[in-house]
Amino acid sequence: MKMLHIASDYQANNRLLSPLMLAELEKLGQLTIVTRGRSMTDDERAAHIRQHDVLITGWGSSQTPSCIAQDRGQLKYICNFTGEMRGYVLPCHIEAGIPVTNWGDAPAHGIAEGAVALMFTVLQNFRPIGKLVEAGLWGGRTVLPMTLLRRLRVGIYGLGVIGRRFVELIEPFEPVLTGYDPYVSQDLWPASVRRVDSLDALFDNIDALVVHAGLSPETRHSVTAELLAKLPSDGVVINTARGGLIDQDALMAELRAGRLRAGLDVLDSPGFGDMLSMNDPARFYPNVVLSCHDAGLSSWPKRDELEFFHEIALDNLRRFRDGHPLRFFMDIDRYGRST
Amino acid sequence: MKMLHIASDYQANNRLLSPLMLAELEKLGQLTIVTRGRSMTDDERAAHIRQHDVLITGWGSSQTPSCIAQDRGQLKYICNFTGEMRGYVLPCHIEAGIPVTNWGDAPAHGIAEGAVALMFTVLQNFRPIGKLVEAGLWGGRTVLPMTLLRRLRVGIYGLGVIGRRFVELIEPFEPVLTGYDPYVSQDLWPASVRRVDSLDALFDNIDALVVHAGLSPETRHSVTAELLAKLPSDGVVINTARGGLIDQDALMAELRAGRLRAGLDVLDSPGFGDMLSMNDPARFYPNVVLSCHDAGLSSWPKRDELEFFHEIALDNLRRFRDGHPLRFFMDIDRYGRST
Repeated sequence: MKMLHIASDYQANNRLLSPLMLAELEKLGQLTIVTRGRSMTDDERAAHIRQHDVLITGWGSSQTPSCIAQDRGQLKYICNFTGEMRGYVLPCHIEAGIPVTNWGDAPAHGIAEGAVALMFTVLQNFRPIGKLVEAGLWGGRTVLPMTLLRRLRVGIYGLGVIGRRFVELIEPFEPVLTGYDPYVSQDLWPASVRRVDSLDALFDNIDALVVHAGLSPETRHSVTAELLAKLPSDGVVINTARGGLIDQDALMAELRAGRLRAGLDVLDSPGFGDMLSMNDPARFYPNVVLSCHDAGLSSWPKRDELEFFHEIALDNLRRFRDGHPLRFFMDIDRYGRST
Repeated sequence: MKMLHIASDYQANNRLLSPLMLAELEKLGQLTIVTRGRSMTDDERAAHIRQHDVLITGWGSSQTPSCIAQDRGQLKYICNFTGEMRGYVLPCHIEAGIPVTNWGDAPAHGIAEGAVALMFTVLQNFRPIGKLVEAGLWGGRTVLPMTLLRRLRVGIYGLGVIGRRFVELIEPFEPVLTGYDPYVSQDLWPASVRRVDSLDALFDNIDALVVHAGLSPETRHSVTAELLAKLPSDGVVINTARGGLIDQDALMAELRAGRLRAGLDVLDSPGFGDMLSMNDPARFYPNVVLSCHDAGLSSWPKRDELEFFHEIALDNLRRFRDGHPLRFFMDIDRYGRST
C-alpha cells in the first residue's frame, strides 16, 4: 500500500503525523511525505497523488486539486485524518466516487467535555468571582446569578455525535433538556431531550443555549439577534462548535450590556477567525469566558498512546487494505452539512 | 405543635426561615421566633425552649444551653434545618436522648456539582487562559496542561453522600477512580471506584485529588505536605469540603511554586476562616480558582419553590407530629464525624 501526504508548509503537522502514528503507518505500507505543497502547481501535486493508493489529508495538508476528480491515476482512497474537509478535499472528488473518510466521532467526547467545562464555569461565575477576589473582596453570592445545572432549562442546538455525547455527560445533573436538529433520525434522538421542530421553538422556554450544530450555508448566523433576545436576563450561551453559527454582533451587544453570560470557544470575527483583535474590549468582559479553541484539548498527563482520531484512521486504513467497508464514509450530503 | 426558633441576632436568617417556609410552618403549628438570643443568658434561652415542643436551629440561631440536657421541660425534638451542628446543638443534648436531626443529604447534589464545576475549570485552565486573553494573547494550548477528565486518575477522599453523588455525576466522563473512606460500608461503595484502605495509598497513582471528607479532630490536616508531594507536577487538588482537612501552608507552598493546580471553595486561614486576607498574593495565582464558598450555590433562575433542605425539615416535622421515625437522626458517632 503506497500512501502519500502533501504538507502545505515545510513540514507535516506533528500532531497529525505523530511519531507513534508514523510507526503504525510504517507497518501498513510505504508512506511518502511531500512538503511545501503550497509552492507547487495543481498539476505537480496531482502527479504525486496519481502514483499512490492512498492520500492522507488533515491539518496542514494541501488542497487536493480538482483535476484528480477527472483523472485519479492509481489513487483509490482519501483518508482525511481530521474532521474539517473543505480545505483538503473538494465536493468534486466525492461526486467522482473517490472514497473519502474523516475522523467521524473521534473528537465528540473532547468537544462535549469542553462544552460541559465551559458551561459550568459560566454557570458558577468563576471568572467574575475571580475578579472580585483580585479586587480584595471575597465571593459574589449576593450580586451574581449563581446557577446549578440541576433543573436548569437547557436548549441544545444540534444533536449529532457531539450533541448526543454532551447529553450523555450532563444527564446525571438532571437538567431539563430541549433540542433542535432536523437531520437526526428519531431512533438516534436521546430520550431525555424534548424535541422541537424549529430553532425559534427551541428558544421558547430555556435558560441556557448550547450550540453543537455544524456550520453550513444554511446554518450560518442562524442564531439571530431576535432569538438571543428571547433568552432571559443572565441567560447563558455556550458555543464550542463554530462562531459563524451565531450573529456575533448581536451576541457581543448582549454581552457588552451584561444581559447574557457566555462561554465561547469559537468566534466569527472578520479577519481574525476564531480570535478577537488584540484590543477588543470583550477580552475583559467578566460575564464571558473565552477559551480560544482550547476547550476539551488534552495535553496532560502525557500518555504513550495514540489519539482517538489516529485509532479511527488506522482502522480505516486496515479496512481499505483488507477490502472491508470504511467507517465515517463521506457522501455529498454529509459533506454539505459538515463544518 | 409549638415550635421555637431563637435567632442570635436582630432577625432570623431569611434563607433559613424564608417566606415560603414560614407559610409551610404555619400549617404545622405555632412558630415563635425570639431574636437577640446572643444578649440573653443561658437560663433565659432555656426558659423559652422548655415551653415548646420543637426547637428549630440552623444558620443564625443561638447555641442551645447545656442545661437543656438535664431539664428539657416540654421540648421533645430539635430540628436543625441545616448541616453544621456544633454551633447550635451540643453532644450532651444528643447523649441525653433528645431527638436531633439535620438536613442529611439535602446539600449533597449542590456541593457535588460545585466540585465538578471547580474541577473542570481547573482541568481546562480557564483562569490562566483568561489572563493570557487579557494580556492580548490568544489561547494557551502550547504552555498549559490541558486536561480531560476522560481517563484521568482521580482520587476521592471521602465517600459519604456528597462523595457518592460526585461519583454519579462524573462517571459518564470515564475517569479512573480510586477512593478512601473507612466509614462507608461496602454495600454503599460505588462499583466504579477502586477502594484503598489508607489515605497514603490513595495518593499512590492519581493525577487529581478531590476532597469530600468531613472535618473532625481525626481528619484535621490529614492531607499533609508529604501526601501533596506525591501528586505529579500539574496535579490537581479540589476541595469543596472544609479547609481544615488540608495542611494549608503546605498546599499554598505548592501553589505558589506553580507545581500543583487547585480549585478551593474552602480555606483554613487563621483568623479568616474560609477567606484569604485582603492582600494575600494567592488571590492572584493563575493556577488556583478560589470560589469563596459559593461553589454549588443556586440563586438563578429564581424559582417559586422550597429549597431541598426545607423539604427535608418539613418531612421530619410531619413525621414528628405523626409519631413516625425521623430521617437523618443524629447519634453521637455521626455527630463526632460531622463538620
